[in-house]
Amino acid sequence: MGRFLVALTTFFCLIPFSIYAQKVSVSKETETCLSCHRIYTPGIVEDWKRSLHAVTSPSEALKKPELEKRISAKNVPKKLSDVVVGCYECHSLNADKHKDNFEHFGFKINVIVSPNDCSTCHPVEVSEYSQSKKAHAWGNLKKNPVYTTLVETVIGKKEIKEGKIISVPSSHFTQSETCFSCHGAEVTVNGLKEVDTKIGKIKVPDLKNWPNQGVGRVNPDRSLGSCTSCHPRHAFSIEVARKPYTCAQCHLDPDVPAWNVYKESKHGNIYFSKQHEWDFKAVPWKVGKDFQSPTCATCHNSLLTAPDGKTVIVQRTHDFGSRLWVRLFGLVYSHPQPKHGDTSIIKNKDGLPLPTTFTGEPALEYLISEAEQSKRKANFKNICTSCHSTQWADNHFAKLDSTIKETDSMTLAATLLLLEAWKHNLAEGLPHGKNPFDEAIEQMWIRQWLFYANSTKYASAMTGAPDYATFKNGWWNLTENLQQMKDWIEFKLKAKDIKSK
Amino acid sequence: MGRFLVALTTFFCLIPFSIYAQKVSVSKETETCLSCHRIYTPGIVEDWKRSLHAVTSPSEALKKPELEKRISAKNVPKKLSDVVVGCYECHSLNADKHKDNFEHFGFKINVIVSPNDCSTCHPVEVSEYSQSKKAHAWGNLKKNPVYTTLVETVIGKKEIKEGKIISVPSSHFTQSETCFSCHGAEVTVNGLKEVDTKIGKIKVPDLKNWPNQGVGRVNPDRSLGSCTSCHPRHAFSIEVARKPYTCAQCHLDPDVPAWNVYKESKHGNIYFSKQHEWDFKAVPWKVGKDFQSPTCATCHNSLLTAPDGKTVIVQRTHDFGSRLWVRLFGLVYSHPQPKHGDTSIIKNKDGLPLPTTFTGEPALEYLISEAEQSKRKANFKNICTSCHSTQWADNHFAKLDSTIKETDSMTLAATLLLLEAWKHNLAEGLPHGKNPFDEAIEQMWIRQWLFYANSTKYASAMTGAPDYATFKNGWWNLTENLQQMKDWIEFKLKAKDIKSK
Amino acid sequence: MGRFLVALTTFFCLIPFSIYAQKVSVSKETETCLSCHRIYTPGIVEDWKRSLHAVTSPSEALKKPELEKRISAKNVPKKLSDVVVGCYECHSLNADKHKDNFEHFGFKINVIVSPNDCSTCHPVEVSEYSQSKKAHAWGNLKKNPVYTTLVETVIGKKEIKEGKIISVPSSHFTQSETCFSCHGAEVTVNGLKEVDTKIGKIKVPDLKNWPNQGVGRVNPDRSLGSCTSCHPRHAFSIEVARKPYTCAQCHLDPDVPAWNVYKESKHGNIYFSKQHEWDFKAVPWKVGKDFQSPTCATCHNSLLTAPDGKTVIVQRTHDFGSRLWVRLFGLVYSHPQPKHGDTSIIKNKDGLPLPTTFTGEPALEYLISEAEQSKRKANFKNICTSCHSTQWADNHFAKLDSTIKETDSMTLAATLLLLEAWKHNLAEGLPHGKNPFDEAIEQMWIRQWLFYANSTKYASAMTGAPDYATFKNGWWNLTENLQQMKDWIEFKLKAKDIKSK
Repeated sequence: MGRFLVALTTFFCLIPFSIYAQKVSVSKETETCLSCHRIYTPGIVEDWKRSLHAVTSPSEALKKPELEKRISAKNVPKKLSDVVVGCYECHSLNADKHKDNFEHFGFKINVIVSPNDCSTCHPVEVSEYSQSKKAHAWGNLKKNPVYTTLVETVIGKKEIKEGKIISVPSSHFTQSETCFSCHGAEVTVNGLKEVDTKIGKIKVPDLKNWPNQGVGRVNPDRSLGSCTSCHPRHAFSIEVARKPYTCAQCHLDPDVPAWNVYKESKHGNIYFSKQHEWDFKAVPWKVGKDFQSPTCATCHNSLLTAPDGKTVIVQRTHDFGSRLWVRLFGLVYSHPQPKHGDTSIIKNKDGLPLPTTFTGEPALEYLISEAEQSKRKANFKNICTSCHSTQWADNHFAKLDSTIKETDSMTLAATLLLLEAWKHNLAEGLPHGKNPFDEAIEQMWIRQWLFYANSTKYASAMTGAPDYATFKNGWWNLTENLQQMKDWIEFKLKAKDIKSK
Repeated sequence: MGRFLVALTTFFCLIPFSIYAQKVSVSKETETCLSCHRIYTPGIVEDWKRSLHAVTSPSEALKKPELEKRISAKNVPKKLSDVVVGCYECHSLNADKHKDNFEHFGFKINVIVSPNDCSTCHPVEVSEYSQSKKAHAWGNLKKNPVYTTLVETVIGKKEIKEGKIISVPSSHFTQSETCFSCHGAEVTVNGLKEVDTKIGKIKVPDLKNWPNQGVGRVNPDRSLGSCTSCHPRHAFSIEVARKPYTCAQCHLDPDVPAWNVYKESKHGNIYFSKQHEWDFKAVPWKVGKDFQSPTCATCHNSLLTAPDGKTVIVQRTHDFGSRLWVRLFGLVYSHPQPKHGDTSIIKNKDGLPLPTTFTGEPALEYLISEAEQSKRKANFKNICTSCHSTQWADNHFAKLDSTIKETDSMTLAATLLLLEAWKHNLAEGLPHGKNPFDEAIEQMWIRQWLFYANSTKYASAMTGAPDYATFKNGWWNLTENLQQMKDWIEFKLKAKDIKSK
Repeated sequence: MGRFLVALTTFFCLIPFSIYAQKVSVSKETETCLSCHRIYTPGIVEDWKRSLHAVTSPSEALKKPELEKRISAKNVPKKLSDVVVGCYECHSLNADKHKDNFEHFGFKINVIVSPNDCSTCHPVEVSEYSQSKKAHAWGNLKKNPVYTTLVETVIGKKEIKEGKIISVPSSHFTQSETCFSCHGAEVTVNGLKEVDTKIGKIKVPDLKNWPNQGVGRVNPDRSLGSCTSCHPRHAFSIEVARKPYTCAQCHLDPDVPAWNVYKESKHGNIYFSKQHEWDFKAVPWKVGKDFQSPTCATCHNSLLTAPDGKTVIVQRTHDFGSRLWVRLFGLVYSHPQPKHGDTSIIKNKDGLPLPTTFTGEPALEYLISEAEQSKRKANFKNICTSCHSTQWADNHFAKLDSTIKETDSMTLAATLLLLEAWKHNLAEGLPHGKNPFDEAIEQMWIRQWLFYANSTKYASAMTGAPDYATFKNGWWNLTENLQQMKDWIEFKLKAKDIKSK
C-alpha cells in the first residue's frame, strides 16, 4: 500500500510536467554558461528553465504534426538539433556578422540575439516579419524628413531665450525612451568597455541605445527587429505574445488606442472575465475550444483552427499588417495599407513622403489595390464569422467604413482652420516653409487626427468602445477641438492687432 | 490495483464536472441547428457548450432550493422543460411578435433573442429590468429634446463653411457606436436581404442598427433591453455579469467613472489581488465566503447571504437603480432618484425635461420621496455593514452627502460664469434661444458637471479613489476649469471689442 | 479499500492546508468577539479566518528559520504567544494610549489598531516605517505652509462673487477624500456617540476623519501610519501588499504615475501575462523561482533571495524611500532623497520649506550625501542584475540621469515663462506676495512639473513606458504646454491692454 501511495503521488506530481517527458540534453557549452549565470543572473536562468527551449531539442520539435509545429525550419544544423536550445546555442550564432561579439571567459558570445539568429529554427516567421512595417519601424521614422521634424518638435529640449521658445536637438537617450522605444533604436557598438560586475571587472562590447526592444530595432548584425518585443526575455513565451498586455506596451492611447479600446470592448470584457479558463499555449489555437473571445494575436497573426484542431480558419503570419486592408492610424487621413513595410519610399502628389496629400488624396501607386483590399477583408471576415453571423460582420465593416469617412472629414475641417491660420500669418507652417508642427494651433490640428480621429476609428474597428468613440478622445473632442481652434484664431487675430500697432 | 487506479482517475477527472452530472437531453431541433453551426460558427457552439443552458433543463433548474434557483418562473412550458436550453429553444420563441423572424432551412428563427423571450424562464428578472432606467435608456435620450440637442452637438459631423463651423445631422452608424452603443439602439427590420455565407447565399432579415447590445435596445419585437449586455454571447454567464469588466464597458471615465474609481479603491485593490480565489458562480452569493470584497454586482443587484447561505442580506434585483437613493451622474446637479425608469416624462419648473432647474432646484414630483430615500439608504447600509462597522458606514455616507453638496456648488459657480458669458453675448445659449452646448465656454461648463463633478462624486461614493477626487478630473480640474472659463470671458470680451469697432 | 479511499481523500483534501497543520487555539476573549461578529459583521470574520493570523500563534511563528520569519519580535508577551492572533489580541493592546478605547460588551476595545500595537510582534517593520516619508505624510503636507496653500487652492470650495472666483476653506470631508486619503488624516475622538446597529443602539467613540487608511494617518494613540494601507482589512496579506494594485491606489497618474508606467512597461507586461503561475506568499521571495518579473514591492521593499532561498539579494525594509537615491516626484525639481522622513523641517536658500529653490538649487544639508546616493544606487543595481547584465543596468541609470536633467530643464523653461507673466503683472504670485498656484498660467506651470515632467521621469525610471514619456503626459505635453503658456501671455497682455485704457 505504501509503495502504491508513493507511485500515486509521483504520478500526480508528474502530471503537469508530462508534456516535458521527452529526453533532452544540454550542450556542454550551455552547461558552462549556466554554471556561472545561475549564480550571477539567476533570474535569466530561471526564466529560461521555464521555457520550451529548455526542455525540447529542435529534432524533437521537428517531429510534431504540421499544424502543431512551433518551428518552421525544414532542417536544423546537426550541432544544434539534439540539444535543448540553451544560452550558447543562441548567443553564439553567426558570430562573424555580430559587431557585438566578444570574448567571454573563453567563448565568443553575441550580446544580442537577432531575428537573423532566430531564423535558424524559425525562418518563416523571420522572413514574414522582415516584410512588415514593424521591421522597418526605425527607418520609417528616421528616413522620413516629415516625421523626423515631428519627432524633433515633440522631444527636442526647449529653452527660453529672449521670451522665445527655442528647440535644441533631442538626446539619443530621450529618443530611445520615447518614439524609438516602440519603433526600435539603432544599437551601435563602440569597441569594448570595462564593467564592474559581481564577479569582478570584465570587458564587454560598449553598446549605445541599449537596452532597447523596439519592434524595428537595428541590430549590431544589421538585421531588423527584436523577437523579444513580443516574446520577452528568456521564456520566449507564446502565451505572453498572445495575451494583449504585450501589444499594449505600444498600441495604446492617446495615439494608437488599440489596447484601451480592447479593454472597453465586449471582446475585452469576456477576455478579462474568463481568460483564466483558456489555453494560451495550444498550437494550433482552436477557436471556441482554447478561447472564447479574441485577443490581438487572434485576429492579427495567430494560426487559428476550428475546435477539431484540423480545419484551418486562418494561417499564421508574422507580417502584422498583412491581414489589414485599411490603415487607420498614425497619419493624417486613413488610406489603403502600403504595399511595402518600408514606407519611407512613399511620395504623395505634393512630393512629400506621405501616403496622402494634405487634404486626403491617397498616393495610390504605393498602396495596395482595391482587389487586394477586398481579398484581405474577406480573409479577415472569415475570422469574425467563426463566432458571428455574416450579417453581423458585414454591418460591422459598413459601420467602420462610415466612421473612417466621417472622422477623416472631421480632420479635414481642422485642416481648413489651420490653413486659415496660416493664411492670416497667425502661425507659420507649410506656406511659410516653416515647421508645421510647433505652434499651438498646429498642435491642436495634430490632436484632431493623431488622438481624436484615431480613437474614434479604433473604437469603431474593434467592435465598440463607447467612451473612446464619444467622450474619451472621441467625438466630444473632435467637436470641442474645432471650437477651440476657432477661438484661438479669434484671440490671435486680436493679439496680432495690438502688435501691429 | 489496476482497476482501482482507473476508478480513481475517473473519479478525479469527474470532480470538476460533477455539477453537470444530471441527465439532460438536447431537442431534435437544436440538434439540427448544431449539426451545421458547429461547422460554420464553431465559436458560438463552443461558447454555448460551456454554459449552464447546455447542461441543465428547466425542470431540473426548478428543483433547486429557493435561494439557489437561477430561474424565476414557477412553471416552464412543457415543450421546453425537459430539454437543455439550446439554439432552437430560445431563437424560436414568440415568433409572431418578431419582425426579425425568418425561414431558415425549414425553421422559423428569430435573429435576436429579446428580454421578452428570456422571460419565459426568467420573468422576475425581466419584469424588474423593465422598470429600470436601463430598459428606457434609448428613449431617455431620444425622447428628450434637451439630450437630443446635446447628442447631436457632440456627434454631428462638422463642416467649415465661410470660416464657420456647421454641424450636419449624425449618421445612424455614428449614433449606434457612440451614445447608443451603451444606451441601446432601435433595431429595425427592412425585409430580407441576401448574404454571402460560408455555406452559400442565404436570405436573412435586413437589420439596421445591428449589431447592438446597448442596455435599452429596442428589439424587433418592441421589447426593451438586451440581456446579452451583461450576460454576453451564448455563455449567459453569471460570472461575467458579476465581474466588474462588464459594467466597465459603459460606466467609465470621463463621464461615468465608476470603473475607474473602483480600480483605484480599496475594494478594487482587494478584488484584483484575490479574485482568483473567489467563487463568482455561487448562488446565493455568500459574503466573506465566496468573496471578500464587492464588485459592482454585489452592491447594486446580487442576492447576498451570510456565509451560511441562508440568512439573506439583500434580495436580488434587476432594476439597477432601485437600491440607490441619490442620482449622482449624467445631469447637471445631483438629485433624488427618479420614480420611473422612463425619465423623459420629467418636467422641471422651467418646463424643461430635466430633473433640476438650471440652478439646481429639483423637480420633486418626479423624484422619490425622502422616506423612500431613507429606506433605500438603510437597505444599502445593510450591505456595507456586512464588512464594516456602523459608524464606518455612517461616516462614509456623511462624507458623500457633503461632497455632493460641494461639487454641486462648484457646478453652480460654473453656471454663473456661463450666465455672464451669455449676458454679454460672448456666446449664444438659452437666453438667445440657441444651442446651449456648442460653444467653447458651454463645453467648459459641461466638463464641470459631466466630467469633473461626476468624478469627484463617484470617488466619494465608492469608498475612495484619491486621484479621481483630486488630480484626475477631480478638484484640480473643477478649480482650473473655473479659472479657464474666467480667462475665456476676458479674452472673448477683448476679441469682441475689435469686432465691434 | 474503502478505508484507504477515505484516508486518501482526506489526504488530498488536506494538502492545500498543510501549512496550517500546526495546533493552534483561539483565546476565550476572541471566541466571545467571534460569537457575535460572525453574525453581525461576517465579512470581517471570514476575512480573518483566511489570514495567517487565524491559524498561527506567535510562538509557532518564532520557530521559523530566520529568513522565513514573518515576525520580527524576539519575544512575544506570554499572554499572546500561544493563541492565534485574533480580534481581542489586537484590539485590546495598549488601551491606555488609545483615545478610541471604549467599553464594548464588557471588554475594553480600541476601534483602531495602530502601528504601535502591531509592533508587539512586528517591531522592526514598525520602526523602519516610522522613519519613512510615508509615516510623516500627514505632517509633510499639514506642517508645510507652501503645500498647505497648494492643497487649499485645489480643494477649497469656490464661489463667484461680483464676477470673481473666491475660495473658501475646504471641509474636513473633502480633505480626507482627496490629499489626505493617501497622505493620511488625523483621526480624532470626540467622546462617545450612539449608533444604531443591527444588534440595537450602542455607544462607540465618535471618530472624526474616520474611515481613513492613508499611509501617514495620525492615530488616536498618536502613532503614525496605518498598516492596513498595504495589508488591508483583516487578512493582513503579504500577497496583497506584493501585488501592484495596492501601491496603485495612490501612486498613479497624473501626478505620480508609477502604476500607469508599470502597466506599460515590460515588467508589467510579464506580470500580467504570467502572475497566475507565481508565488506571492513565499518568504523569502525567491527571484526567478517565485516570480519572473518584479512588482513594486520587489524593488522597493521585499526581502529577496536567490532561487536557493538562502543567498540574500536585498534585505527587507519598510522605510520605503530608503532604497532610493533620487527623489523624482512631487516637487518642482528632482533632488537627492531627504535625510529624514519628516520633510517639513527643510528650508531652501530662499527660506521656503522646499528641497530646491524656484530655479532648482537643492537644499543640500537636508538631503542625502553623494556617498549615500552612490551606496543606494549600487544596492538597487544589485536587484536589477539578478535578471539583467551589468551594462544593461548601467545604461538604464545613465538614461534616467539624462532624462532627469532634461525634464528639469523643461520645468525651468516653464518657470521662466511664469516669471515673465509675474513681471508684467499678468498674474499675481510670489513677487506680489500672493498665492502662486491659483491663476491659469500658474496652473499650467504646475502641470509642467507635477504631471508632465513627473510622467516622463517615471517612464524613464521604470524601464520604459513609451506613451507616458511621449504622448500621454510626456514630451508632447511638456512641449505643448510651453506653447500654451506663451500664447496665454500674449492673449493676457492684449486683454490687460483693454482694461488699462
